Amino acid sequence: MRIGIIGGGQLGRMLALAGYPLGMRFTFLDPSADACATQVGECIQGAYDDPAKLQQLADSVDVVTFEFENVPVSAVAAIAKNKPFYPPVNALGASQDRLSEKTLFRELGIPTPEFRAVDSLADLQQAVNEIGLPGILKTRRLGYDGRGQYRLRKASDIDAAWQALSGSALIYEAFVPFTREVSVIGARSSNGDIAIYPLNENQHRDGILHLSRTPYRHATLQQQAERYLKKLLKHFNYVGILTIEFFVLRGKLVANEMAPRVHNSGHASIEGSATSQFENHLRAICGLPLGSTAPRGHAAMLNFVGAIPAQENALRQQGVNFHYYGKEARPARKLGHATIVTNTPGARELALKKLLKLADRS
Amino acid sequence: MRIGIIGGGQLGRMLALAGYPLGMRFTFLDPSADACATQVGECIQGAYDDPAKLQQLADSVDVVTFEFENVPVSAVAAIAKNKPFYPPVNALGASQDRLSEKTLFRELGIPTPEFRAVDSLADLQQAVNEIGLPGILKTRRLGYDGRGQYRLRKASDIDAAWQALSGSALIYEAFVPFTREVSVIGARSSNGDIAIYPLNENQHRDGILHLSRTPYRHATLQQQAERYLKKLLKHFNYVGILTIEFFVLRGKLVANEMAPRVHNSGHASIEGSATSQFENHLRAICGLPLGSTAPRGHAAMLNFVGAIPAQENALRQQGVNFHYYGKEARPARKLGHATIVTNTPGARELALKKLLKLADRS
Repeated sequence: MRIGIIGGGQLGRMLALAGYPLGMRFTFLDPSADACATQVGECIQGAYDDPAKLQQLADSVDVVTFEFENVPVSAVAAIAKNKPFYPPVNALGASQDRLSEKTLFRELGIPTPEFRAVDSLADLQQAVNEIGLPGILKTRRLGYDGRGQYRLRKASDIDAAWQALSGSALIYEAFVPFTREVSVIGARSSNGDIAIYPLNENQHRDGILHLSRTPYRHATLQQQAERYLKKLLKHFNYVGILTIEFFVLRGKLVANEMAPRVHNSGHASIEGSATSQFENHLRAICGLPLGSTAPRGHAAMLNFVGAIPAQENALRQQGVNFHYYGKEARPARKLGHATIVTNTPGARELALKKLLKLADRS
Repeated sequence: MRIGIIGGGQLGRMLALAGYPLGMRFTFLDPSADACATQVGECIQGAYDDPAKLQQLADSVDVVTFEFENVPVSAVAAIAKNKPFYPPVNALGASQDRLSEKTLFRELGIPTPEFRAVDSLADLQQAVNEIGLPGILKTRRLGYDGRGQYRLRKASDIDAAWQALSGSALIYEAFVPFTREVSVIGARSSNGDIAIYPLNENQHRDGILHLSRTPYRHATLQQQAERYLKKLLKHFNYVGILTIEFFVLRGKLVANEMAPRVHNSGHASIEGSATSQFENHLRAICGLPLGSTAPRGHAAMLNFVGAIPAQENALRQQGVNFHYYGKEARPARKLGHATIVTNTPGARELALKKLLKLADRS
């Protein structure tokens, strides 16, 4: 099976590494000649919205997917007509606009923070009046890893927030005083089979995922998350991996956003689950049986952002799996991650402490 | 780190898949345009002994290794002068000739079956007289997976054996009425650190490895195997993975052959060990700290030779890791393998029974 992937970042790279043991072959479309996935597969260099390049990609593979949700819907809709294209274009479109995403959540009965569309300073003032403070003004489109967001703490922040983000279509959301953040990741195959992973508990730093622990065991929340995820999977007639990020507020889940792709909070599944999220995405889009999502232990995943420990030091840590993405270091750039899988939560915390020390020195 | 690999078969392929998470990059030299490793890395198409192609490979990488021990020593000796080349050329050379290999074993005090060089029918008759029957006449060079071998059961087999193999330099070896076959795999890094895996117990079918179970726990034999392996590692000032295959005879090890490379009997280490043989080979040749060889459970590896189960059926087996090498099916061709890792030897045997049934249907 030949797989075409729009986007050549670390998610595409890890998809290929998961697919090679199944004999799959990979071609990436990415505007950058040194996108890190191109080190591990064929590459077509071109813009995500270049119809000729997209067609070239589609023509050279059996199925097309993407690792990056800011792919223009209009550009991929054309190739999706004549080539299996998963996850479906409608899910991709819904995930690109925070307003349509949250509106859909609400329609499906998935709780969200209060939100209002903001197209003018007056809209923003009214939204703050209605929803209250603190809140977050966000661009509706093209935001990720905390970019395109402005946090409002007091009424006098309104002008600065508007200055910072006006020019884009915006959404104002109530700040959720969450007790923790979790994510649920699941796969649906074309025959309707569904496989859902246990919840991940996530910690962010400067708006970027820093640390995930999995499984986060909480039967009620797991049940809620699975119910919400299944609603979305069915709504979209979804094929592939879908992720929802939630806040936990007073013992209940409040959906923050969804990602129609493998997700950073699921990277520990490479070593920590019977089948990784990457492999299950590929199984789903290739119409193969889904693999078990059973955890292999108590896992933690630490992101390396902006800096990554030198291998001479890192690889001395026994019992840690390091993943270097083959990217040059740049501030706020995800350069790699490390995974720990242990038999008990206590052992995980001990190993994590050591790993965090190593990361701090890098 | 850029790694050049001479040979583009499944061992090269699995080396690359182990090295990508460490950010390494791979270029293969192989005469075949569709060698299976070329699906996962850069390829230089050319003969193993083409000096210009070997130089091109060496020029494009930081370190050169091989996945195939029938690489001509004279051809690689030239590039080994100016580029890190591991495992060392002297180990490669010794492994290519069963006579020099067994002579070295004997010199280092590593037990071997009785053997004699055979260059004429008279030599063969004398060897049979001195060593006795049954025995095996083998080509000294270029044999693998049972090819280039003729088993002699009675004196009247001598002529047929000679007819079958004369024309090559030969060796006659006593047949060892072994109770089991085991292999030991270990890595030595350039700074002299050594990491040795627990023994694998191996079963062959038609001269080709069929099934390996690991760890084969036997403290005395493990100790013997490690002692012999260390002798060879030190003798060659070895860097990389080295494998010795042994017969077990009356509770003692008798060395059959060595392989200066990752080995089929170690494939279960991908899922079954803290660090796979592939990763430890790369760590060793890149001067990085070696990884733990601790087993993650009781593992078994089943080879698929000539035929491999269709993924629609195979991937329904939960708890089995399938590896498809991306090769077209041909009789006696290794097409893939499957690995099981369980918590107890009993669970392994149960899972293996199911897997063997699936394999028999394919």
